[in-house]
Amino acid sequence: MSAYAELKDRFHRRSAIEGALATLQWDRAAMMPRGGSDARSEQVAVLETIAHGLLADPAVPDLISAATAEHLGFADRANLGEMRHAWVHAAAMPADLVGALARAGAACEMAWRSARANSDFKAVLPQLQALLALVREEAQVKAAALNLSPYDALLDSYEPGGKSAEIDAIFADLAAFLPGFLDDVLARQAEKPDPLPLTGSFPTAKQKALVARVMTAMGFDFEHGRLDESAHPFCGGIPDDVRLTTRYDETDAFSGVFGVIHETGHALYERGLPAEWRGQPAGNARGMSLHESQSLTMEMQAGRSRAFLSWLAPTMAAAFGGSGPAWSVENFVALAQRVERGFIRVEADEVTYPAHVILRYRLERAMIAGDLKLADLPGAWAEGMTELLGVAPPDDRLGCLQDIHWYDGAWGYFPTYTLGAMTAAQLFAAAKTATPNLEEALAMGDFRPLLKWMRTHVHAEGSLLPTGEILRRATGKPLDAKAFKAHLRARYLG
Amino acid sequence: MSAYAELKDRFHRRSAIEGALATLQWDRAAMMPRGGSDARSEQVAVLETIAHGLLADPAVPDLISAATAEHLGFADRANLGEMRHAWVHAAAMPADLVGALARAGAACEMAWRSARANSDFKAVLPQLQALLALVREEAQVKAAALNLSPYDALLDSYEPGGKSAEIDAIFADLAAFLPGFLDDVLARQAEKPDPLPLTGSFPTAKQKALVARVMTAMGFDFEHGRLDESAHPFCGGIPDDVRLTTRYDETDAFSGVFGVIHETGHALYERGLPAEWRGQPAGNARGMSLHESQSLTMEMQAGRSRAFLSWLAPTMAAAFGGSGPAWSVENFVALAQRVERGFIRVEADEVTYPAHVILRYRLERAMIAGDLKLADLPGAWAEGMTELLGVAPPDDRLGCLQDIHWYDGAWGYFPTYTLGAMTAAQLFAAAKTATPNLEEALAMGDFRPLLKWMRTHVHAEGSLLPTGEILRRATGKPLDAKAFKAHLRARYLG
Repeated sequence: MSAYAELKDRFHRRSAIEGALATLQWDRAAMMPRGGSDARSEQVAVLETIAHGLLADPAVPDLISAATAEHLGFADRANLGEMRHAWVHAAAMPADLVGALARAGAACEMAWRSARANSDFKAVLPQLQALLALVREEAQVKAAALNLSPYDALLDSYEPGGKSAEIDAIFADLAAFLPGFLDDVLARQAEKPDPLPLTGSFPTAKQKALVARVMTAMGFDFEHGRLDESAHPFCGGIPDDVRLTTRYDETDAFSGVFGVIHETGHALYERGLPAEWRGQPAGNARGMSLHESQSLTMEMQAGRSRAFLSWLAPTMAAAFGGSGPAWSVENFVALAQRVERGFIRVEADEVTYPAHVILRYRLERAMIAGDLKLADLPGAWAEGMTELLGVAPPDDRLGCLQDIHWYDGAWGYFPTYTLGAMTAAQLFAAAKTATPNLEEALAMGDFRPLLKWMRTHVHAEGSLLPTGEILRRATGKPLDAKAFKAHLRARYLG
Repeated sequence: MSAYAELKDRFHRRSAIEGALATLQWDRAAMMPRGGSDARSEQVAVLETIAHGLLADPAVPDLISAATAEHLGFADRANLGEMRHAWVHAAAMPADLVGALARAGAACEMAWRSARANSDFKAVLPQLQALLALVREEAQVKAAALNLSPYDALLDSYEPGGKSAEIDAIFADLAAFLPGFLDDVLARQAEKPDPLPLTGSFPTAKQKALVARVMTAMGFDFEHGRLDESAHPFCGGIPDDVRLTTRYDETDAFSGVFGVIHETGHALYERGLPAEWRGQPAGNARGMSLHESQSLTMEMQAGRSRAFLSWLAPTMAAAFGGSGPAWSVENFVALAQRVERGFIRVEADEVTYPAHVILRYRLERAMIAGDLKLADLPGAWAEGMTELLGVAPPDDRLGCLQDIHWYDGAWGYFPTYTLGAMTAAQLFAAAKTATPNLEEALAMGDFRPLLKWMRTHVHAEGSLLPTGEILRRATGKPLDAKAFKAHLRARYLG
């Protein structure tokens, strides 16, 4: 067997273990009774250790060197490059640091749950300090191995090839643009009457039927996936068996539908990854910004467009027996495009969302650099919110305790949300240009033209090219904030 | 670390992988969309290979030798004995035979599904021949390693310590008793009017509520388990998170309830295994005959007793709004204790069930010994059915194609069903003697006295003692057919 074939076999086994882990994690969130928790944690820890060991094995670098000398075509070379990247990340980490991070992350997340419920940041401070110390250690060892700054070394796990220097430039552009733009949007919005709420009751059974219909319209294949319920909606599973979750609020069908549209965007990306590269790193999703671009294309670009809302409004009215002005297309547009200065990132509209992300990005860079003491986080949070959004949270629950990310060890993830939003705007603009009937189709609840374009230009590329190159080939240019700003101007001030 | 501690750690990891596998297999049956099948097979194959490798590792026999020389208490010595037993089974098997068996089993099972649908044994004959050849190879290598006959070496996987010489004696006793007894029972039954069928419709939602109530009455803890649906009901999962399945027939609530009672018996055993031995072989269920004894205690001994039926009849009548003579306790007894000569094992009553098992036991021993050519199986089946039950199946679907066992490679499993039925009778008799209010409680839908006795005398023993010793301590004697025959006489001719 060639060295490359041996590596492929090893990565295939690793992928099977990761697929098993994806099912176990979905099960924990959507199915598992509480009493199964400890045993499940053990199963996950054992499988993660085995998966890490497959990469950290000293045989791997020799196999990679030998494979580099073999004659490989373009795609296999790309796959080998992804193998090397995964190996560098795994091998950089001493096994005891992997274990310590897993334990500290679990302890901190548990402390965070009650700290958030009690809005008491101090209660989780010791666990967060312990966790951050380990993450900074991870950042150091990976920085040395990857020849990157410590923050970029963390970012590289979520966004391979991502650089904070590039993010700085893009975020500076946005930070200069957004505050004035937000004022204009809110002034324009104040001239119009408030949207009417959708009143009535929205039984779970009817919501289920509706979202299944929307998912099918979007191209979701229920032969290769499921939709279930969990406290925190997510998209998990594997490309051939995507597991989505949502939660149903019987007083609010509107946000539920958009939550499902968002997760379905993630699911369609996974499902569209190149089948011939299943189980190999080249067949994986490219990174978190491209992943988020797919959910935001579906939720923000297509889902909240007037075209799609002109199909959704009568569809929802029929599903729930709604009638009157609240169920008009005009009111759905007002509801779906409502802008507000709020405290909570996950409830934010697309105009204010980047401010939430920029704040977190600044703070997490300072934490990793050692420039921000954790005890000062609530104060720095309030200051940043005031500067970027003009509002300061009344308590920590609505402030620095709202997101799970840092509390389970994910520093370096936040910027991918806004990179994803900008990528979505750039991709959607290119798709519209290339596909004249795209919006007409959306107005009939038909996502096929949009999905076809994304399948071809984004999904089918897997990880065969770097993120920037996928975007350049798909849109003709590198990522910048232009398309995003143009989209916001057209939608909110057009 | 001592050698024994190292072994414990290794078996703990193996148990975590097996727990993950149990979730994946439950998910495949109860949740997975069809399109996830190939990826799931890969996940299972990779994890099974890793679990096998943990035991087949050449370091293991040295650790076992070293641990044998360490000072260990009784329970740790029992645990070490179980480790050795698991190792002998794993190490006896060459890795390529493990892989070949998995592939041949999967191919044969797939061919069997369509062969059974078409009632065409010849269509699966080549795959079954290939599989049997490999199983006979497995029997040979394990026979050498275990110093057993080839058949007993296979039996030992399902029933550790089980010996065909002992089974022969017990089955001969039953085979001599049952035909005449069956004639007497059918004659007695013919004197009475036929039971009235429960007519009406039995909506799935109401059946779900009913079986949840019955499971709770039996002591099932929904904090540590779930009930879902699958085409073939089973009990899977792990002791802290037991996953049961059933299927709902809206025209027949009666067999559904007894199916759930049966699986709940398995579940209660798993849940009652000693918590301090979780993840170690001494904490596992003892073997398939004891496992089946627990499901049959619940379904046959307790569930179909007049005492329990006097609670179940009014409970079901209330659940489905039933009234009239069909819903009387008397009619429930007639329905639950109906005896018939039938073709299908899984539908058989407890009087004719042993004949089905004795037939399969004789045939599978002949197949493993090479005394029965597979091409002659349908003829031998018809002959055996005629001899043991007085009926011959009209086709292979109702004959030798009805059970999955051989077609997925499980030779040596069948006798445990009837050993389980006899064990159940012996245990239940002892429990009744020791617990005067046991039947009174059942008549109120209260399983606590029965469960308490089983928890103490069977479940809590895990695999700390051999099956025969658990039974001897619990009932005062080794397994024989006396209690089973006494039970049948009392119930059917009493």
